[in-house]
Amino acid sequence: MADPRFFDRQGPFTLGAILEATEARVAHGTDLNRRLEDVAPLSLADERHLAFLDNPKYTTAFRKSGAGACFVTEALAGEAPRHMVPLVSSAPYLAYARAAHLFYPSIGTAAPVSLASGNIHPSASIGEDCRISPLATIGPGAEIGNRTVIGDGARVGRGVVIGEAGVIHANVTISHAIVGVGVEILPGACIGQEGFGFAPNPPGYITVPQLGRVLIGDNVSIGANTTIDRGAGPDTVIGDDCRIDNLVQIAHNVTLGRGCVLAAQVGISGSTKIGDYVVMGGQVGLAGHLAVASGVTLAARTGVTREIRKPGTYAGFPAVPITEWRTQIAHAKRAAKKRKENDG
Amino acid sequence: MADPRFFDRQGPFTLGAILEATEARVAHGTDLNRRLEDVAPLSLADERHLAFLDNPKYTTAFRKSGAGACFVTEALAGEAPRHMVPLVSSAPYLAYARAAHLFYPSIGTAAPVSLASGNIHPSASIGEDCRISPLATIGPGAEIGNRTVIGDGARVGRGVVIGEAGVIHANVTISHAIVGVGVEILPGACIGQEGFGFAPNPPGYITVPQLGRVLIGDNVSIGANTTIDRGAGPDTVIGDDCRIDNLVQIAHNVTLGRGCVLAAQVGISGSTKIGDYVVMGGQVGLAGHLAVASGVTLAARTGVTREIRKPGTYAGFPAVPITEWRTQIAHAKRAAKKRKENDG
Amino acid sequence: MADPRFFDRQGPFTLGAILEATEARVAHGTDLNRRLEDVAPLSLADERHLAFLDNPKYTTAFRKSGAGACFVTEALAGEAPRHMVPLVSSAPYLAYARAAHLFYPSIGTAAPVSLASGNIHPSASIGEDCRISPLATIGPGAEIGNRTVIGDGARVGRGVVIGEAGVIHANVTISHAIVGVGVEILPGACIGQEGFGFAPNPPGYITVPQLGRVLIGDNVSIGANTTIDRGAGPDTVIGDDCRIDNLVQIAHNVTLGRGCVLAAQVGISGSTKIGDYVVMGGQVGLAGHLAVASGVTLAARTGVTREIRKPGTYAGFPAVPITEWRTQIAHAKRAAKKRKENDG
Repeated sequence: MADPRFFDRQGPFTLGAILEATEARVAHGTDLNRRLEDVAPLSLADERHLAFLDNPKYTTAFRKSGAGACFVTEALAGEAPRHMVPLVSSAPYLAYARAAHLFYPSIGTAAPVSLASGNIHPSASIGEDCRISPLATIGPGAEIGNRTVIGDGARVGRGVVIGEAGVIHANVTISHAIVGVGVEILPGACIGQEGFGFAPNPPGYITVPQLGRVLIGDNVSIGANTTIDRGAGPDTVIGDDCRIDNLVQIAHNVTLGRGCVLAAQVGISGSTKIGDYVVMGGQVGLAGHLAVASGVTLAARTGVTREIRKPGTYAGFPAVPITEWRTQIAHAKRAAKKRKENDG
Repeated sequence: MADPRFFDRQGPFTLGAILEATEARVAHGTDLNRRLEDVAPLSLADERHLAFLDNPKYTTAFRKSGAGACFVTEALAGEAPRHMVPLVSSAPYLAYARAAHLFYPSIGTAAPVSLASGNIHPSASIGEDCRISPLATIGPGAEIGNRTVIGDGARVGRGVVIGEAGVIHANVTISHAIVGVGVEILPGACIGQEGFGFAPNPPGYITVPQLGRVLIGDNVSIGANTTIDRGAGPDTVIGDDCRIDNLVQIAHNVTLGRGCVLAAQVGISGSTKIGDYVVMGGQVGLAGHLAVASGVTLAARTGVTREIRKPGTYAGFPAVPITEWRTQIAHAKRAAKKRKENDG
Repeated sequence: MADPRFFDRQGPFTLGAILEATEARVAHGTDLNRRLEDVAPLSLADERHLAFLDNPKYTTAFRKSGAGACFVTEALAGEAPRHMVPLVSSAPYLAYARAAHLFYPSIGTAAPVSLASGNIHPSASIGEDCRISPLATIGPGAEIGNRTVIGDGARVGRGVVIGEAGVIHANVTISHAIVGVGVEILPGACIGQEGFGFAPNPPGYITVPQLGRVLIGDNVSIGANTTIDRGAGPDTVIGDDCRIDNLVQIAHNVTLGRGCVLAAQVGISGSTKIGDYVVMGGQVGLAGHLAVASGVTLAARTGVTREIRKPGTYAGFPAVPITEWRTQIAHAKRAAKKRKENDG
C-alpha cells in the first residue's frame, strides 16, 4: 500500500516465508504457498495484503477488514472475518514489524542523501518562476509547483510534491509528503520523518516501518522547528487552512480537519483525529487514538485524555468544560486558604 | 515603519485605494486623496501611518495614537483622537492585513534564498578576524562584527546585524534581527521568522504581515532549536545578559528585560512584557499581552494567565505565590487520602 | 579530564595563577607553586585536578573526592578531605567558571566550522560502504563506522565517533559525542552542544565551560528536533536501546539507563539519573539532580520533583502513584460539582 514514490517494496512473499520470518502460526491446512504483495492498515487492506491487530480498540476494524491475512493474538483470532487468514502470534505488532521489514528492507536508511553534486536531481520536476536556492536539495522525482520558493539548506526528499506558490524556508527538512497550494513552512520544521513506532523485542525494540505519508492541504502554515511525522501505514493529514505555530509535535496518523489553529508547543499523540476549526492554545497535549469534535477550543495547557464529542471550550488536565475547570480552580484556592487559616 | 534593511515597501497609497482594498468605510466628506505612506503599530504611528485597533485592551493606546488613519470597529470609532481618520470595519484586523499586503506585497516570499553561488553576498560587510564557514550563507547587506564565528549551514538573512565576538552555531537560521556583542546562538535555533499572526477570512485565514524585528542585546545566549519570532510591527526584544535554554518559544512582540533566565521548553505568548532578572523553570508557559515584574521567579511548569506585579516566587497553574501553591498541593493530597479512607 | 578529541587544554597552571584568576583564598602557608593540570568533576578528579562544590547536595562527593584542590564556600571548607586544598570563595561556581576558562580558553568559539572547501576533513576516518552526502560536514578526526548514512546538511563535529550502520538524517547537528552501533537520529536533532551552565557575575552571567560529552549506546533512536546537551564535566549518557521521540530536551549530565522510552516534548533537567526501561509519556518534565528507579512509568504530562525509588506508574504534578492521582482528580471534580450546587 505504501506510495512507490517514497518506498521501495520487495516481494511478493509466500505465507510460508512470512511465517518463517515472524514466528506466527496458522491453522492446519492453510495454503502456505499463497502470496501476499504488501502490508497495509486494517482499514485499507484487501486480499493481497497483510495487516495486524494489536490495540483491541481496533477490533471492529479487524472484523470489517478486507485483509488477506492478519497478525493477531490467539484470543482475538476467532473474530477474523471468513476471507482472512489469522496469523496467530503472542506479539502481533512485533510480527508485523518483522514482516514489514521483509517487504521494505531499505526503509531504515532513507535519510535524504544527495549522491550527485548538483542540488536538484535530474528527475525532479520544477515549475515556472520558482526560486530554488542553490544550497537547497531537491530529491529524485520531486515535483515543485509554479512560483514556489525553496530556501537555503532546505531538504526536499525523493518524490515529495509541493504545490504552487509555496514558501519553504531555510533548513526545513521534508520527506514522504504531498503538500498543497500556497503552503508556508517556517525554518527548521521537519515534515515526514518516521513516526515513533516500535515493538518490544527484548532486551530492546524493533522499529516498525512507517509506510504512510504526510498529506498537507492548501494554504496551510507550519511554524519554525515544528515536527510532523509521516503515517505508520495510514497517512498523517493536515487539512486546508490549518495554522500551526512553532515547536508543535504532530505524531503519526494524526488527522487535522480544516482551519485548525495550533499555538506553540502543542503535542498531539498518534492516531488522534481532530475535527474542523479546532483551536488549541499553547502547550496543549492530546493522548493518542482519540477524536475531538469540530468547533472545540482547548485553552492553553489543556491535557486531553478522552474523546471530546461536543463543541465548546475545554480546559485543565484532564480536560473538562472550561466553566467546570474554573470552579475546580476556585475551589482549590478557597480550600487552601481555609486550611491555611485553620493551620495558622 | 518597517526597517528597510529587511522589508521592501510599496506606496504611498491614497485613502481611496486603501478603502477599496479593505472594504472599510469613512465618514462622509473625508478626503479620499490623502496619501498614507506606511502601516505602523498604534504606539509608534504618526500622521503618515495607518494603524489598527482590534484587541480592546489597546483602546487607551488608540486614544493616544498619532496615527493618521486607523482601522476600528464602529463601536470604538468614536474614541478616535481628532487628528485620526477612523476606518470603520467589522473586522479591523482583517482590513489591516489586507492593507499591509498592499504596502508589503513581497512579504510572503522572504525565505532566505541565495541566488548567487557564493555564500557571502557581495553587499554584506564582514568584520576582522571572523571565521565564517564556506557552508554558511550571509545575505545582502548583512553586517558581521569582528571575531564572530558562523558555523556550517547557518543562514544569516538580508540586513541582519551581528555584533562582535558572536558565535552562531551550525544550522541556525536568523533573519530580520539586530544582534548585540558576545551573543551565542546554539545549533538549530530559528530567530526572526514571521510571528503567528493571521486574521479570520472564512473559510480560512489571511496572514498578517509581520513587519517588526528581533532585537537581541549583548552577552545573550540562546539554546538549541529555540524559536524567537520577529515582531508584528513592534519588535521582539531580548535584553542584555539573558540566558535562554533549548526548545524555548518566544512569540512576536515579547520583551525580555535584562538578565532573564529561561529554562528549556518555556513558552511565552505574544506581546507579553517580562521585567529584569526574571527566572523561569522548565516548561513554564505565559499567556499573551501580560506583564511580569522584575525579580519574579516562576517555578518549573508554572502557567501564568494574569499580570504579576510583585517580585517573588510563583508556581502552579494558574500561577499563585509558591507558598499558596504548596498549600493547595498539600490540601489535594490530604483530601484524596481522606476520600480514599472513606471510600475504602 | 576533558576528552582531547573535543577540547584543547592549556596549562598546567600554578595555584597562584589560579587564585589570581578567581579571587579565591587558601590557608596561610599553602604552596602557591603547586601545579594543577585540569579541571574535573568531584567524582572523577584526582590530585592533578581542580574541582568545585556549589550545590550542598554534593557534599558527600566532596568529602570523598580525590581532587587536589577545590573551590568551596568558607562554611563547607572544613569538610575537605586532608589531601585536598580548599580554595575558599563566596561564589565557588563563578570561581570554577573562571578557572575553567583559563584551561579551555577557546571553548566559547567551538562552533563547527569547515575552513576547507571539502565537506569531509582529511583527518576524518570513514568506514566501508558509507553513504555520506556531499552536502554534509564531517569534522577533523571524526570516525564514521561501516555502512553508516549521513544526510544532506548534517554537521558532524570534530572528533565525533559514530558506530556502524548508523543513520544520521538531514540537518542534524552533532558534536562532542560518541555514538554506538545502529543509531538513528532524525532530522534537525541537535546533539552535543553546550549545556545550560553559567554562574552569576552581576550584572550578567559567565558561561561555565561544558567539558563533558554525550555518550550514546547501541540501537538508540532519537527524534526530530530533539536536543541533547553534552555534560558539564561528567558526560550525558543515553543507554542502549533507548527510544526518544521528537522535541525532547535532555540536559547536561543526565543519564538514561537501558531501553528507556521518552515520548515527544519530554524535558529532563540537568544531572537527573534515570534507571532502565523507564517509560515517559508526552510532555513529562523532571527536575534536576533526581534519581528515578528502573521500571518506572510516568504518565503523560507528569511533573517529577522528587526522587522515585519504587517501580510503578506515576502521574500528576507533583508526581504521585497514579491511583492516588486518580483519587485527587475524582475529588477535585466532586468538590467542584458540590460547590457549584451550593453556589447555584
